Amino acid sequence: MLTLQSPEVVQETALRWKRETKIAFVPTMGCLHEGHLRLIRRAKELAPKVIVSIFVNPLQFGKGEDFEKYPRTLELDSESLEGLDVDLLFLPTREDLFPQSFSTAIHVDGLTTALCGEFRPGHFDGVATVCLKLFQITQADFAIFGEKDFQQLRMIQRLTADMNLPLTIVSHATVREEDGLALSSRNRYLTPEERAHATRLPESLKQVRATFQSHPEFPVEDILAPAREKLEGVGFKLDYLTIASARDLIPASGSTLAHTISEPRVFFAGRLGATRLIDNWSLAEEMT
Amino acid sequence: MLTLQSPEVVQETALRWKRETKIAFVPTMGCLHEGHLRLIRRAKELAPKVIVSIFVNPLQFGKGEDFEKYPRTLELDSESLEGLDVDLLFLPTREDLFPQSFSTAIHVDGLTTALCGEFRPGHFDGVATVCLKLFQITQADFAIFGEKDFQQLRMIQRLTADMNLPLTIVSHATVREEDGLALSSRNRYLTPEERAHATRLPESLKQVRATFQSHPEFPVEDILAPAREKLEGVGFKLDYLTIASARDLIPASGSTLAHTISEPRVFFAGRLGATRLIDNWSLAEEMT
Repeated sequence: MLTLQSPEVVQETALRWKRETKIAFVPTMGCLHEGHLRLIRRAKELAPKVIVSIFVNPLQFGKGEDFEKYPRTLELDSESLEGLDVDLLFLPTREDLFPQSFSTAIHVDGLTTALCGEFRPGHFDGVATVCLKLFQITQADFAIFGEKDFQQLRMIQRLTADMNLPLTIVSHATVREEDGLALSSRNRYLTPEERAHATRLPESLKQVRATFQSHPEFPVEDILAPAREKLEGVGFKLDYLTIASARDLIPASGSTLAHTISEPRVFFAGRLGATRLIDNWSLAEEMT
Repeated sequence: MLTLQSPEVVQETALRWKRETKIAFVPTMGCLHEGHLRLIRRAKELAPKVIVSIFVNPLQFGKGEDFEKYPRTLELDSESLEGLDVDLLFLPTREDLFPQSFSTAIHVDGLTTALCGEFRPGHFDGVATVCLKLFQITQADFAIFGEKDFQQLRMIQRLTADMNLPLTIVSHATVREEDGLALSSRNRYLTPEERAHATRLPESLKQVRATFQSHPEFPVEDILAPAREKLEGVGFKLDYLTIASARDLIPASGSTLAHTISEPRVFFAGRLGATRLIDNWSLAEEMT
């Protein structure tokens, strides 16, 4: 595995590869878990060359968020990637990607307005900006994103279409623990007690899906209320628990009849202690 | 010459070409004049494949500006391009580049704040957005921009560096009429009388340069005042006449001593009747 810090050298390498083959790319912030590794295995299926980046992107963290304490486990990450036969690990510094002279901002409107957009101002602009740079540097033909960050995935699809990027965005189902908790680098912030309570999150979202499917004639609020109560009961502070269409990510009002929503999904964000967790689930998919 | 409307087909074609050769690209809004043709001849020197686009970009026109009446001379343009042995003419519609679903905005800060940025809010965002799209569609290795639109050129250089676009921005000296007036598609708006008065513009900028070079110890305002008077005397309504460093495009205050400005340039924008003209000139270059 090549390990490179310089955007210029990665781009030269990628341009050379691209003349003869395809490149699949997985952007990460490191602290790799099984969710990331699955994205990378998917990348290996899609293209002969696989590039992974590790960069904790300051632009996508707000004031008071966890940029400083975000877990950095480079040695372990590097070993995992070797094991997966990754071709190139891109490890830029902040100065490499965002030098003093950097002056460009990317904003994707619409899809980023609600849900986490409301609670993390500037977050999606930061993600869009770094992803557009990374796509140019890695010359990716495919980029793989997990559905756990569903709003991010949808925004990146929009950005790719809007900017005519010659790139296919591939989505990957959320990878979960045995109890259903979505894998996230932030799960390691949870105390053992919080981790035990966190199991209520996938349970609640499953319950939302069950009620949605058995009572599609219910208004949205009646479907969500028991789940909200359960989550607050174990100490979750909710940013939102809502049903929105996967198309526009605009939360339905509480009085909307559930069956009138196209491509319905339940979306959650909230804090357990100091840890912010997010999750989302298609309401149309079959019960498992 | 291939003439194509579809961004997808142009991109496919360009990606195929790119495997074996280089591509030079000249973006235009049509109504081609000798200035454009020189950029295209330069493109021919730079790469075996040359793509020219004609698209009157609605995003870069403000309210009350001349989007509707901007001259469209497609048949003549097409003939000129055939004569120059251009490989591909890209002729997208508004719907092709900016469909209803389009939601992305690009903003380059700093360089776009002053000069025309002050008088044409949103203009440079519109230019940045369409250029980034066009670069992706045409897969350009080189893109050629004229120095007449100096602020645009500098912004595109910044955008290219910031976004790690695998692309070289090539600047081309302003092409001028015999009396020194910079070629511009908008010159055709001028009445014969206005065209006669317009000759004062290159004269005045030359005068600024002469004074700058003979009296580098003068404050900026003393260098500019006679030129301003001359221009207003023939009916120019000035947006600005100012000296700024080519590095940051921040106008020097009137009391700044001219010789303290690095890479000094004089910048002008103003109206003659209904026609907005712009021009700029390096103050360091030799007198001609």
